[in-house]
Amino acid sequence: MENFRMYVPTDIRFGKNRLDELPESLAQFGKRVLLVYGGGSIKKSGLYQQVIDLLNANDFYIQELSGIEPNPRIESVNEGASLIKEHNLEVILAVGGGSVVDAAKVMAGAAYYDGDAWDLIVNKELMYDRKALPLVDILTLAATGTEMNRNAVISNLAINEKKGTWGWNLIPQVSFLDPTTTYTVNKWQTAAGVADTLSHLFEQYFNRTTGVELQDNIAEGIMKTVIKYGPIAIVQPEDYDARSNLLWASTLALNGLTSDGKAGGWSCHTIEHKLSAYYDITHGTGLAIITPRWMKHCIDTDSSTHEKFAIWAKNVFDIHEKTNELTARKGVETLYNFFKQEMLIPMTLQETGIPDTKDVLAMSSEAVNHGGLNTNRIFVPMEIEDVEKILLESFVEMSEF
Amino acid sequence: MENFRMYVPTDIRFGKNRLDELPESLAQFGKRVLLVYGGGSIKKSGLYQQVIDLLNANDFYIQELSGIEPNPRIESVNEGASLIKEHNLEVILAVGGGSVVDAAKVMAGAAYYDGDAWDLIVNKELMYDRKALPLVDILTLAATGTEMNRNAVISNLAINEKKGTWGWNLIPQVSFLDPTTTYTVNKWQTAAGVADTLSHLFEQYFNRTTGVELQDNIAEGIMKTVIKYGPIAIVQPEDYDARSNLLWASTLALNGLTSDGKAGGWSCHTIEHKLSAYYDITHGTGLAIITPRWMKHCIDTDSSTHEKFAIWAKNVFDIHEKTNELTARKGVETLYNFFKQEMLIPMTLQETGIPDTKDVLAMSSEAVNHGGLNTNRIFVPMEIEDVEKILLESFVEMSEF
Repeated sequence: MENFRMYVPTDIRFGKNRLDELPESLAQFGKRVLLVYGGGSIKKSGLYQQVIDLLNANDFYIQELSGIEPNPRIESVNEGASLIKEHNLEVILAVGGGSVVDAAKVMAGAAYYDGDAWDLIVNKELMYDRKALPLVDILTLAATGTEMNRNAVISNLAINEKKGTWGWNLIPQVSFLDPTTTYTVNKWQTAAGVADTLSHLFEQYFNRTTGVELQDNIAEGIMKTVIKYGPIAIVQPEDYDARSNLLWASTLALNGLTSDGKAGGWSCHTIEHKLSAYYDITHGTGLAIITPRWMKHCIDTDSSTHEKFAIWAKNVFDIHEKTNELTARKGVETLYNFFKQEMLIPMTLQETGIPDTKDVLAMSSEAVNHGGLNTNRIFVPMEIEDVEKILLESFVEMSEF
Repeated sequence: MENFRMYVPTDIRFGKNRLDELPESLAQFGKRVLLVYGGGSIKKSGLYQQVIDLLNANDFYIQELSGIEPNPRIESVNEGASLIKEHNLEVILAVGGGSVVDAAKVMAGAAYYDGDAWDLIVNKELMYDRKALPLVDILTLAATGTEMNRNAVISNLAINEKKGTWGWNLIPQVSFLDPTTTYTVNKWQTAAGVADTLSHLFEQYFNRTTGVELQDNIAEGIMKTVIKYGPIAIVQPEDYDARSNLLWASTLALNGLTSDGKAGGWSCHTIEHKLSAYYDITHGTGLAIITPRWMKHCIDTDSSTHEKFAIWAKNVFDIHEKTNELTARKGVETLYNFFKQEMLIPMTLQETGIPDTKDVLAMSSEAVNHGGLNTNRIFVPMEIEDVEKILLESFVEMSEF
């Protein structure tokens, strides 16, 4: 186990009917609020009006910034930072999914930066310890885990880039997690959220650090929960047990619990970020498609991974084949079928709206050269042709595992 | 799943060779320090001198309070609170195991209270939101989890009471967790720590709240880790993997991770606190002895518990018998043998130094009447005669499960 610092001071308010705690949660930081949200879904659900009524009844001054994109863009971040400066705002309230919260985090840091907020994405040292405006959020989607960590991912479509940044002061101060607000999340987004949660766990689990059994056992427990409740939420979107387990699982999947004590980098996210940057596809869907191809690539090319994949298949899917390799491959097949048959995710890239393979080489090259996929921080280091192969295979249904 | 608030802002500094971060961690709160510790073990190990040198080199003013007892006493707490007031101290540094940290927590709250600190134990409302001095700790024993939660347990031997209290401001600000400082923990204390960690997980796991699969799956993952590494630490006390997994597991076992979202009370701790209050025995040892008898009592008297015990035995010990009841009983037997044969814990109360059964009725009566063991918050509610039976059975080796 590696040395680590865990500092996760987010005040989590989990459960139903507790928005009456919102005014006090905000007022501890100030009465001048930047309200950030995405499209119309919170208006349709009534959450927007509920928040506005609460804030008005408690004499908050509100500036609104709506229209945050599913892959949030740097232009929106700069707009939010300008509003904060112009109106001397004291606290951000983000209402929405991970994209809205991620955008709000970078606005919070950019509020104390004079240049283009993209600098804070490219140059992570600028963000690391930067002062930031306090952030309170009301999460409406179980997926990214941003509600209890210090990370944010922002897209700059002008240059086909989607990049993460992080800072100790970006972590939300208070996060409201109400499983009932996720009842209206459609099947597509529910499935993408499940895939994103699982991918976070995989990125941290398939790792070379030794002596991290605790983190890995916890990760397996979270995976099993998500795999049990994902299909239930698809069939019964208002099942409270399913929605509450999925929501809290998505938070715990990326708050340090299963990564602290490990070194190493991420594989599938690095590849998927290129897809999103080029084609603006749904992040979780892209991950679901790439992950089993990536797993097969690991098993095909590096036999030292068979044991870990076999432990995973055994503990998560209860698969017991004759050899580690067979158990591992059966695990990949089971995951693929879980995504396809139970979560109803279209498992090829064409189905996400990527018409052809013309950008595959460029995306592969950038993933390796900018994302460091060929370094030994990666579980199985990949060269450009490896990523290319994984992406090309993502255009056809898998039949061998 | 029940609504919950999770707020765990402790800044964890986990790993080797990071005490150079101590001066800055303390100085953010002030330079006037109450240094609290127990017996001579930190002097023998050199940790005491290392801390003193660091503090002196950085111009801290130090008042020392040593001799905190293994079951920390209210007299020591009052003494610490007096020192804080008399010398205008600004921050507490607790160096030791859970007892030292627990005592320091109550001193931190009592620093802002004029009466006897025992009031803050008996009347929990007085502690709930009480202002408290900031607390930094260097933990030397993997067991209680106090280093990342807001609870403390204090003994008042004059009236045979051992009671818990808690407050939002008692949670440590910074906790240093260095697995190598636990290398010198002897077999007896190592085993007691393992038993305490497991008991915390059991108290939270054997619970009637539904829809908490996530918390339970995580708990099983932590249990498996502790059961794997406990025996390794007994045989190889300087195995870093074992010590680091046990240390971090003990922290995560009681920081809310496996209890948040559940209602319900604790059984074995309530009984054990009476043993410690009457006989000042090692808490974890008492828990190891009581737990399998309590489990057998649940299985014997309430068939509705068989399924949960069977799930536990299957997932943690990989036991698969023909019926839930048989699987459950085999699980209890396996746990008993784990404590006795692998952790080398003497599994009867006589061996802990309790000479006879004369106080059993009094202890049982107090556990039920003061500890609420007969209420339906408890997994299997117990009357006085039930507790009596469990305690009497704790005087003889188990042979049936």
